[in-house]
Amino acid sequence: MSHNLHDKPSINVLFCGSTDISRLNSLSSAGKDPESTFLTPTVDAEIIQTGKVISTDEPPMTPDGIPTPSIIASSALDAMEIQSLIVNAGLKFKPKASYYETGLEPAKAGNMEVALPEIKSALSAGRDIFRLLKNCKGPIMMSESVPGGTTTAQMVMNLWGKEFKSSSSMKHNPVDLKERICKEVVKHHGIQSDPIKAVRLGGDYMQAITLSFLSNVDDEIVYLAGGTQMAVVWYIASELGYHMDNVYLCTTDLVMKDSADQIEGIVNPDHIIVSRLNYKLSEYKGIQLYADDNVREGAGLGGSTYFALQTMDDKSLMKRVDGFYSKFIHP
Amino acid sequence: MSHNLHDKPSINVLFCGSTDISRLNSLSSAGKDPESTFLTPTVDAEIIQTGKVISTDEPPMTPDGIPTPSIIASSALDAMEIQSLIVNAGLKFKPKASYYETGLEPAKAGNMEVALPEIKSALSAGRDIFRLLKNCKGPIMMSESVPGGTTTAQMVMNLWGKEFKSSSSMKHNPVDLKERICKEVVKHHGIQSDPIKAVRLGGDYMQAITLSFLSNVDDEIVYLAGGTQMAVVWYIASELGYHMDNVYLCTTDLVMKDSADQIEGIVNPDHIIVSRLNYKLSEYKGIQLYADDNVREGAGLGGSTYFALQTMDDKSLMKRVDGFYSKFIHP
Repeated sequence: MSHNLHDKPSINVLFCGSTDISRLNSLSSAGKDPESTFLTPTVDAEIIQTGKVISTDEPPMTPDGIPTPSIIASSALDAMEIQSLIVNAGLKFKPKASYYETGLEPAKAGNMEVALPEIKSALSAGRDIFRLLKNCKGPIMMSESVPGGTTTAQMVMNLWGKEFKSSSSMKHNPVDLKERICKEVVKHHGIQSDPIKAVRLGGDYMQAITLSFLSNVDDEIVYLAGGTQMAVVWYIASELGYHMDNVYLCTTDLVMKDSADQIEGIVNPDHIIVSRLNYKLSEYKGIQLYADDNVREGAGLGGSTYFALQTMDDKSLMKRVDGFYSKFIHP
Repeated sequence: MSHNLHDKPSINVLFCGSTDISRLNSLSSAGKDPESTFLTPTVDAEIIQTGKVISTDEPPMTPDGIPTPSIIASSALDAMEIQSLIVNAGLKFKPKASYYETGLEPAKAGNMEVALPEIKSALSAGRDIFRLLKNCKGPIMMSESVPGGTTTAQMVMNLWGKEFKSSSSMKHNPVDLKERICKEVVKHHGIQSDPIKAVRLGGDYMQAITLSFLSNVDDEIVYLAGGTQMAVVWYIASELGYHMDNVYLCTTDLVMKDSADQIEGIVNPDHIIVSRLNYKLSEYKGIQLYADDNVREGAGLGGSTYFALQTMDDKSLMKRVDGFYSKFIHP
C-alpha cells in the first residue's frame, strides 16, 4: 500500500447512474428505500456541483438516517477548490445542475436481460471525456455514485469467471442476496471470456465509460476514487493491457478493513491509496456513524478526503463537513 | 490586425442555442426556413461532435442550399484533432450526441419580453465551464451556433446605448428588419447602463455564458471564434474590465470585408485574428459560394480554419472538407 504524497487532482469526474439492480429490496442502502436509490445519484450530483439539494427536500440517506457520503466529498473537494464534471452514467432523474449529458438511461437488471443495451454510446462518451480532459495540467480523479454498483461489480467479475466478493456501502453486506443475483446472471448469460462483454451483459454504465476512458490513457495520472466498484474497473483495465502505470485506486480505510483481501487480490497494492479520516470528530451522530462501518464509500469519499487531508488535519476537514451538513439539517 | 502565429487551441467549446428572434421571417438564414433555424444548432452540435447528422436527414443549409459552416469547421477541427465540448446555450432540441447540459431553453424575443429569464443559470454555467477548463494546457477556443445571434448582438449594443450594426451570415443582410427589432427592444426595455442587464433583456445565452466565463479569465489564452456576435462579447468583457490581454477574436475575411469598420471600432485590432480560406478550391458549388459572401461565419468557421491553415494549405484543407461533405450528399 503506497503512502507517498500524490499530487491532488485538477478535476473530479463524478459518474452518476442507476441500475435496476438497486431496486431489489434491501440490496442497496444508498437511499431510504429501494425506489429512492434512483434519486440518490441525481441528488449527489446536485450536492457536488451546487452545494445544494434541489430535486429532494433532504440529502439522500441510508435507511438508518446516515447521510450520503457526497456531503463529506463535496466539503473536501470544495476545500481544495477542485471542480467536478458530473456525467450522466445512466440517470433516471436529471440533476437540476449542469452536467455532461450522454443520453444514457439506467442499466437494466443483468440477471434478467442485457444490462447495457446502449454500451456503444457509453464507450463513445468515455473516449470523448478522455479527449476533453487529456490536456489537463494535473491528475484526473474519477468517482461514482451508482447505488447497486457493488453488486454489478461482483456480477461482472462472476460473469467473467472470476471469484470475487464485493464490499458494501452497508454495515451488513447483503451477501446472500448478492450471491443469488450473481448466480442468476451467470446462469442467464453464461461465462464470458471478454470482460467488456461481461460489463455489457451484467454491469453498469459507470464501468463502461470509465473503461473506455482508461483505454485511451497513456501517461496521464488517474485516480479511481471508490471501493470494490473501482477496484474491479482497475482490474479489468489492467487485464486488458491498458497503461495502468499512473492509474491508482483511492478508497477509504473502511473499505480496506472490510475487503482488503479481495481488493489486494486484483489491484497492485502499490496502486492503492487509502484515506483515513476520523469521522468521530464530527458533532453529528449521522456522520460519526461512518466510523462504525455504516457507510464505507461513495461519491469519491476516499479520494476526496485523502487529498484534502494532505493539506489540512482531520479536525479542520471535519469542521468544514459539519458546517456544510448543518445547512441541510437546519435549513 | 495581428498576423502572428498563435498556438492552436487545445479544446473547442461550441455554444449551441436558439432565440425566438430567429423565428422572425427572413431574419436568419441559418436554416431553410425560420422554423428550421431551431434545429440548426442541434445538428451543428451533432456534426461537430460525431461527424454525423442525426436529428435531421441532411445538414442544415441556407434557403439557397448552401451548407452549414459546421461542415467546414468540423473538418478543420478533425484535422487538428481538437476535441469539442458542446454546450447547451438554449437549445430547443437536444442533440443526439454527448454535450454539456445547462438546462437552458431558447432565449425569448427581447423586443417583446425579457430575453434571458434564466440568466442566473447561464452565469453559473459559465463559471463552472471555466473551472472545468482552467487547467487546460493550451488555449481555449469558444465558438457558437446561434441562429439570430447577429441580431441579438446588435440588440444588446443598442440597449446598452451604443451604435452598432452587426454583420449577417446572409449575403443580403436584412438591415431594415434588424433595425426595426432593435428599435423595438430599446422602446420596450429602455437604455441600460449595465451591459449584463442589456444581455438579460435583449441578448442570448451564448453571450451570458461566455461573458461569465471571461469574467474568470486571468492569463488563460482564449479565442472567441465568431463574427460580430463574438466581437460584441469581446467589447462588453473589455468594457467591464475583464482580463483581455490574451483573449482574441478569430473570424473570417468574409466577416471583416463586410464589417471591419464595426468590429475594429469595438475590438482592439491587435486582438483580431483573420482566417483566409480559398473556398473556390472546393469541388462543391455549395461550398464555393461561401467565397461570394453567401455564408460568412458560424460554428467557429474562422477560428477552426485559421488554426488548421497554420499546418496545411488551402488545398489540403479543402480536400478534407470535400471528403467530409461528400458523405452527406452521397450517403
